Amino acid sequence: MPEKQEKQPEQEAQQPETEAKVEEEQPKEEAKKEEEAAPAAEPPKEMRAVVLTAFGGLKSVKTQKKPEPSPQEGEILVSVSHCGLNFQDLMARQGAIDAPPKTPFILGSECAGEVVQVGAGVENFQVGQRVVCLPEFRAWAELVCVPARLAFALPDDVTNEEAAALAMNALAAYMLLFQVAGLSEGQSVLLHSAGGGIGLAIAQLARTKENVTLIGVASKSKHEAIKDHFDHLLERGCDYVSEVRKISPDGVDLVLDCLCLEDCNRGYSLLKPMGKYVLYGSSNVVTGETKSFFSVARSWWQVDKVSPIKLFDENKTIAGFNLRHLLRTPAGAERARAAMEKVMELWKNKVIKPIIDSSWALEDVPEAMQVMHDRKNIGKLILNPALEPKPRPATPAKKGSKEEKSKKKDKEEKKDEKKEEKPAENGDSSDKKEEEEEKKEPEAKQEDEKAAEKADS
Amino acid sequence: MPEKQEKQPEQEAQQPETEAKVEEEQPKEEAKKEEEAAPAAEPPKEMRAVVLTAFGGLKSVKTQKKPEPSPQEGEILVSVSHCGLNFQDLMARQGAIDAPPKTPFILGSECAGEVVQVGAGVENFQVGQRVVCLPEFRAWAELVCVPARLAFALPDDVTNEEAAALAMNALAAYMLLFQVAGLSEGQSVLLHSAGGGIGLAIAQLARTKENVTLIGVASKSKHEAIKDHFDHLLERGCDYVSEVRKISPDGVDLVLDCLCLEDCNRGYSLLKPMGKYVLYGSSNVVTGETKSFFSVARSWWQVDKVSPIKLFDENKTIAGFNLRHLLRTPAGAERARAAMEKVMELWKNKVIKPIIDSSWALEDVPEAMQVMHDRKNIGKLILNPALEPKPRPATPAKKGSKEEKSKKKDKEEKKDEKKEEKPAENGDSSDKKEEEEEKKEPEAKQEDEKAAEKADS
Repeated sequence: MPEKQEKQPEQEAQQPETEAKVEEEQPKEEAKKEEEAAPAAEPPKEMRAVVLTAFGGLKSVKTQKKPEPSPQEGEILVSVSHCGLNFQDLMARQGAIDAPPKTPFILGSECAGEVVQVGAGVENFQVGQRVVCLPEFRAWAELVCVPARLAFALPDDVTNEEAAALAMNALAAYMLLFQVAGLSEGQSVLLHSAGGGIGLAIAQLARTKENVTLIGVASKSKHEAIKDHFDHLLERGCDYVSEVRKISPDGVDLVLDCLCLEDCNRGYSLLKPMGKYVLYGSSNVVTGETKSFFSVARSWWQVDKVSPIKLFDENKTIAGFNLRHLLRTPAGAERARAAMEKVMELWKNKVIKPIIDSSWALEDVPEAMQVMHDRKNIGKLILNPALEPKPRPATPAKKGSKEEKSKKKDKEEKKDEKKEEKPAENGDSSDKKEEEEEKKEPEAKQEDEKAAEKADS
Repeated sequence: MPEKQEKQPEQEAQQPETEAKVEEEQPKEEAKKEEEAAPAAEPPKEMRAVVLTAFGGLKSVKTQKKPEPSPQEGEILVSVSHCGLNFQDLMARQGAIDAPPKTPFILGSECAGEVVQVGAGVENFQVGQRVVCLPEFRAWAELVCVPARLAFALPDDVTNEEAAALAMNALAAYMLLFQVAGLSEGQSVLLHSAGGGIGLAIAQLARTKENVTLIGVASKSKHEAIKDHFDHLLERGCDYVSEVRKISPDGVDLVLDCLCLEDCNRGYSLLKPMGKYVLYGSSNVVTGETKSFFSVARSWWQVDKVSPIKLFDENKTIAGFNLRHLLRTPAGAERARAAMEKVMELWKNKVIKPIIDSSWALEDVPEAMQVMHDRKNIGKLILNPALEPKPRPATPAKKGSKEEKSKKKDKEEKKDEKKEEKPAENGDSSDKKEEEEEKKEPEAKQEDEKAAEKADS
């Protein structure tokens, strides 16, 4: 059953490839399906959206005008003020996700804004309410229709920007740390990808338990910025098993592994009795040449299936956590809603705080994606539809911090995308890659975009 | 690594097979090794103990006189007032445990009593203190030496009998329910072997969380007695997957499975998203013809190893819990000690209460074992070294409840043990077996025992 993920209705409802088609007003049940594809005879209002035109590199990511959507039964229409950029967006761009929708479609799976219309059957939201939403796609637009089960009301003291910066990471971190792994006081945690958004959310949440020892693995370049969050920091690519044994000879209680592939067996061996290994996502193989990251991961892991008897012998636990899959089922979404309420409490009480790296206009998404790909961000990359795009032609994306970005605006280097497209060497050479890519700039995308916009409008 | 369990020092320290050997006073470091094998020139004081003379049936279980042990470094000597009979004792009797000690050895892994001597290096116990102990073997005797890490001080308001009835089950239930599975309010639990000691402890502990739905699977004959502990009871051997779906169409949050073998895949399929499957012990295959239950279980389970990617796809957890293995390591024993403190609190506050089926003299252990084997007990079987053995010749063990036992004393049926020794048909025909064995009585053991006692003394 796990080998083939069933197609989700939401994904099947993606737009057909033709965009120029013009039709009469749609019957209601078909409107969603073609909402962005078929302007009515009297052209509908338009919005800006970040569209993926084909799976692949950054040049397939274009900001285009699209018809405004209208909410179907069970949906709310949200006017978006801020969006979150997540690693899964980079994977979606490459089609490296299970059951990807057909292109073109609007990217983005996290946004915050205000409810502007409520579809039939929705009782828990009203117009004017501020919400954060975790739709499977379509979040990066001025307007988005979201199933009500994927929207969460925001308390007064949480801003939209904070919500877009923290909702997905904090929710995932909360659920995996407290509901899957059951962290309790005095425990030790080994955390891979410690410097990413979810890693930092985990670190903050783990501190709500007394006397927890946090060992983070992150690229050396991030150590200085994140060192206050961890008791020990190890360098990405190091022999972390020996390093952890030096710190904690008996091993650790939890290993939180974002699908690093090479690390699974080594990580498992570090578990204390009663220890838990949680596989919670992916971040290492976005540059793979295969379209299906999961097929790679699966074939790798098949060698290392786990015998439940081994778990029984050794008093160990193996768990998987995948927020995206969880949100697809009503029961899972319900569970996530209950968790989000607890997250919001922690949030209001400043137990967890968003860490924002930088904010970007929709038009600058390719550059923001490059920053994330190069692991140059510390904290969240936010998209803000109200921001003016940077002056063209091309602005390089070297560091991602605001100061450096202003310098980069002066540059005019162009490179094609080939380097980014090269195969991942089984996910373990990223540090090297980072160095190589230091000098790489995002592709010259503005000509393509202008052409596309012309075709759209 | 899991395929072969490493031998534990404790087990290697078992007695050599000869018992008649007579030697001078032992040097201290060898004394433990031969404590029961070598009476000194001046015969040491003796105690009664339940000895397994060879792996196999009930007739290998004999109450014999043995030299009193004396505590080594790190050990305490306990004067035993009550012992617990557990399913693992039946498995140990058949050698159906990993790395069994050589016969003869003293059986028993749970007892309560008073500290009468403290070995060097033990700081947390004093003479006169009441304790409950979970040694790997040797608990069923008037005196036992126990590593201090496996002993737990008893609060004033817990009797020795209660402790022997509850310690192991409550500790295992607490750890697997709250530390491994992380039960939280509102969740649903499917519990196999619901009528056993650990099953009832789990049921009581689960009620400390609000609004938990408990679905128990147990032999029909136990339903009446245990029905107050469960929201729903299913009959052992039924199509429990359909039955659970009727009760809870979405499935359950936890499946607690005591290694029922046939049930694993079906149980896993019942898990909700975020659901956890905990494999926590064994109770179904004690009558197997193989010496190594684990080799059977392993070969069965190898077909069903679990891909971590599947867990990730489905948001599920698989966990193993094995208290016996946990207690073997200092770190594991430390963790168990912390849990036992919480269990004692719940105990003192009457949140959990021991459920005692019946009490037995050491000499009547074979009969008590037969009661447990036939699943006739509801709650714990207690051994009490101070009790007079039942009048001989043989007393049948049909029901195990006190009233019925008094009737049984009048009977004089004898049967050999062949029926009990027959191979288990992969663990799924036990209900049928129960019926077949309704009429079976324990073997005529008293002649053997008298002969053995004569040889000993």
